Amino acid sequence: MKKLHDDSDEVREELERDAADSLPQIAHHLGADLRKLVEHFHKDNIYLVTDFEVPFLRFRQKVSSVEKGTMVFLIGARAGGHKRIEYIRGFPKIRRLMNLRTGLAKNLPKEFYVEEKMDGYHVRTALINGKFVAVTRGGLPCPYTTYRIREHLPNLNFYKENKKLMLCGEVVGIQNPYQEKSYPEAQKFGYFVFDIRDRMTNEPLPVKEKYRLIKKYKLPAVRSFGKFTSKDHKKIRDIVRQLGTKGREGVVVKTADMSKQLKYTANQSTNSDLNYAFKFMFDYGQAFMFRRLVREAFQTYELGLKGKKLEEEATALGKSLLFPMIKTIKEIDEGKEVTEDFDITVPSEEFGRAFVDHLNHLGVRATIEKIEENKKTKHVTFKLKRHYPATNDKIKAYLSGEFCEE
Amino acid sequence: MKKLHDDSDEVREELERDAADSLPQIAHHLGADLRKLVEHFHKDNIYLVTDFEVPFLRFRQKVSSVEKGTMVFLIGARAGGHKRIEYIRGFPKIRRLMNLRTGLAKNLPKEFYVEEKMDGYHVRTALINGKFVAVTRGGLPCPYTTYRIREHLPNLNFYKENKKLMLCGEVVGIQNPYQEKSYPEAQKFGYFVFDIRDRMTNEPLPVKEKYRLIKKYKLPAVRSFGKFTSKDHKKIRDIVRQLGTKGREGVVVKTADMSKQLKYTANQSTNSDLNYAFKFMFDYGQAFMFRRLVREAFQTYELGLKGKKLEEEATALGKSLLFPMIKTIKEIDEGKEVTEDFDITVPSEEFGRAFVDHLNHLGVRATIEKIEENKKTKHVTFKLKRHYPATNDKIKAYLSGEFCEE
Repeated sequence: MKKLHDDSDEVREELERDAADSLPQIAHHLGADLRKLVEHFHKDNIYLVTDFEVPFLRFRQKVSSVEKGTMVFLIGARAGGHKRIEYIRGFPKIRRLMNLRTGLAKNLPKEFYVEEKMDGYHVRTALINGKFVAVTRGGLPCPYTTYRIREHLPNLNFYKENKKLMLCGEVVGIQNPYQEKSYPEAQKFGYFVFDIRDRMTNEPLPVKEKYRLIKKYKLPAVRSFGKFTSKDHKKIRDIVRQLGTKGREGVVVKTADMSKQLKYTANQSTNSDLNYAFKFMFDYGQAFMFRRLVREAFQTYELGLKGKKLEEEATALGKSLLFPMIKTIKEIDEGKEVTEDFDITVPSEEFGRAFVDHLNHLGVRATIEKIEENKKTKHVTFKLKRHYPATNDKIKAYLSGEFCEE
Repeated sequence: MKKLHDDSDEVREELERDAADSLPQIAHHLGADLRKLVEHFHKDNIYLVTDFEVPFLRFRQKVSSVEKGTMVFLIGARAGGHKRIEYIRGFPKIRRLMNLRTGLAKNLPKEFYVEEKMDGYHVRTALINGKFVAVTRGGLPCPYTTYRIREHLPNLNFYKENKKLMLCGEVVGIQNPYQEKSYPEAQKFGYFVFDIRDRMTNEPLPVKEKYRLIKKYKLPAVRSFGKFTSKDHKKIRDIVRQLGTKGREGVVVKTADMSKQLKYTANQSTNSDLNYAFKFMFDYGQAFMFRRLVREAFQTYELGLKGKKLEEEATALGKSLLFPMIKTIKEIDEGKEVTEDFDITVPSEEFGRAFVDHLNHLGVRATIEKIEENKKTKHVTFKLKRHYPATNDKIKAYLSGEFCEE
């Protein structure tokens, strides 16, 4: 075992050297400041990941002009000195409008498109060294998502015929370990494209060109509501509220040339976020909660709600905070553990077990409750539980009479 | 000017040396670890305050067994080497019950007293070097509070006849710069004693002895609801809810020997805190808000509210968050600045101006709106505004169409 370990240390050292040697070329490709890249490579903010088929550099944070979540694949590096570099650039932050009327007028004075913002998790997909891969927002390949999207897509023609491009889309549905929102059109699993970008330059395709490719390749895509101007702010607000009443999230507005993108979401969706976060209240960030409370106030103010409508909005908010907390306290008081239950469908038991290990490695505390094999489809379904120790431990202590330090 | 400055630096250096030399004696008096005191004196966690009549050491944080907010007065130090040390120990944290039934049973299995917890600011009062002073929780003399309490009390007999003791009480009423809660029995200004302690050892008087002294000296004191046992948890919950409906805060439960004290407050009072904090949402701590949301859930759960009652509780909570935020957004949208307006009554314009400077020095951004002299009483009333720049600036930006970075 010792020998093997030494070997892999040596291999890693060699890969590290190779990566360091490639930085000038990478800086050139990405139009980034080489000194910054070198500095952050040494600080480990750009670090080498070696447990994927192709070793890659992952940008843990934004460095120079290069987005967080960017991945730099060193193709052929294992064979001693790599031959080619491929990229999956990180997806840039989409900023949020707090006031729709003034925000549209100020930021998008001319025409723009309105598309639905779906509430799932962000996944970029591409061919790397000719092989299909799905990566998370943070810049890590997700073997489960890769498998599911690959199964989901009728073919890989888009990727094969557009090797420089990547699809940016949202995975929704309950069968995933990252979030639990289901849509009528994708209850268990769906992937909906909202952007197509150059993998190396991160240049987005203009909206029309994107629509053309979506149509051509029959790609699943988020809904487009068409073209608007900032004078249509009321119409857009109506669309958002309508989406909200259907349990959907909101919209992203985009200029035709994609030089600007901004998001705006419905209070109902914010309430559903709060409901979720307050179920596991001591495990969720307070900033996450606070931001959402502020958003609701801005939307309610802009809607100009009065009297009974305003009271209803307050009640909905109050319930979204109080009810999940009370439910959680009650369950813990009854001796249960409050967990998040979900399932994933995988090609084999081995794949599933490896993925659960991967999740735990990422800090998601998941355990396997049950493994079910579908003899017909040969798929294996894992019933998983995600644990929230802070919430469970703290509430248990308070319920037992422990006091609180404040 | 140069010379004068050198002089005062020299004086300060001498006082610092004197303070350092006194640390062994102070450690002995307070039963504290000398090494810790020396270490934290050098770290400036115990630091010398020289702008009060008597120079004193202030404990910015808990050191060894000595509470945060403790003050060590070096009497006669200015005359070159002090003669006597006097103390005002910091008031210990009173922990909070999250579940009344189990919390009482676990922490106070036998008899205890229930007293009202009033919602104002904590002030300890004593004679230092024979002179009356009122100090804040953090361990700083407040000239305004000193003046008002001195005017408020019929005489100083308690202090003169009990030099070793200090009164710990709550200042309530609208005429103060620290909080804005009014009580029917003290609309503008009131001081209500809840503890009497040894200034040096911090030993509290047993409850009965405290009641005796309160009676003897006719001291204004918080209400006592009498003796209870943990079996009375429902009765106590009723008292707390009753206090809540009257806009009052809650209770502190105390064993007769004062070895244990715990607090419990009403949801209505928590809502009023939230209402206040969300008015100035970007200036208040998110932890402050979050803790209160959790408290409400625990109380609502323990009350076992169902149906309409439960919905009402959620509505009250939702309103406490949403309504103050909307009001603030609206006012800023109308071009107003959202401020906190309050007034203080002082003996002279000079005193008032000096106190406003003092407040600004402490980080409270207060400005004078108006100064009114009462010719009859010779009192001067300052109308003040407290400013909340973060809230005003951020909301103004969002309203103007600025996007939000997330």
